[in-house]
Amino acid sequence: MHFDHAGIATENATELADRYAALFGLEIAHEETFDGMRVVFLDCGNGYFELLEPTDGGTIAQYIESNGAGIHHLALATDDIDDALDTVRTHDVTLVDEEPRPGAWGHTVAFLHPADTGGILIELVEH
Amino acid sequence: MHFDHAGIATENATELADRYAALFGLEIAHEETFDGMRVVFLDCGNGYFELLEPTDGGTIAQYIESNGAGIHHLALATDDIDDALDTVRTHDVTLVDEEPRPGAWGHTVAFLHPADTGGILIELVEH
Repeated sequence: MHFDHAGIATENATELADRYAALFGLEIAHEETFDGMRVVFLDCGNGYFELLEPTDGGTIAQYIESNGAGIHHLALATDDIDDALDTVRTHDVTLVDEEPRPGAWGHTVAFLHPADTGGILIELVEH
Repeated sequence: MHFDHAGIATENATELADRYAALFGLEIAHEETFDGMRVVFLDCGNGYFELLEPTDGGTIAQYIESNGAGIHHLALATDDIDDALDTVRTHDVTLVDEEPRPGAWGHTVAFLHPADTGGILIELVEH
């Protein structure tokens, strides 16, 4: 697997995208509204920062309320998410998503519970 | 700039490295003791997960005490860290490191304060 993106919870994706463009030269690769969030992918060349702005309550809004804006998850890309989940299951990792589901940008995703991955919410993603 | 690594605070880098090898096939690219931490870089192919285990108190130990283990920072690689810091300074970003300093793995690094980067501790790194 390789690095795909870091998910970042923010109250204003437009403002943060503008700021990261000015500070680091990161450009917008893709944006959409998905699952009650405005989602903006910033192109890091070898991966993305995925800005997540809640538009309609939901888990990201709750996350920001509890933790403040900041890094929400790390995503690893796999060529075969079913196979990757099978491997994870053999190691007794609690799954947030028991089966792969549609994610942003038309990808297929599954989240693993941070309790079994060192406190980090890990997303598996198949493009 | 491009993605360099995600820094992960952990109480046991060996255990977490073993777990990420088993779950995701990530191998150790480099390890060392640096600045009161055991530092283990896991190779994601296009970047790294940098596991940070405090061995001697310090900021990572404090971070874990306050926040628990988890994602600590995101690092972007630049070919010219002096130039990158100059750009950042023109946008009134508070710097944790006013000047570049030696980081792990022989790299040169500077951290930016999360207050001005959307709640994310960003590290600039020049290899």
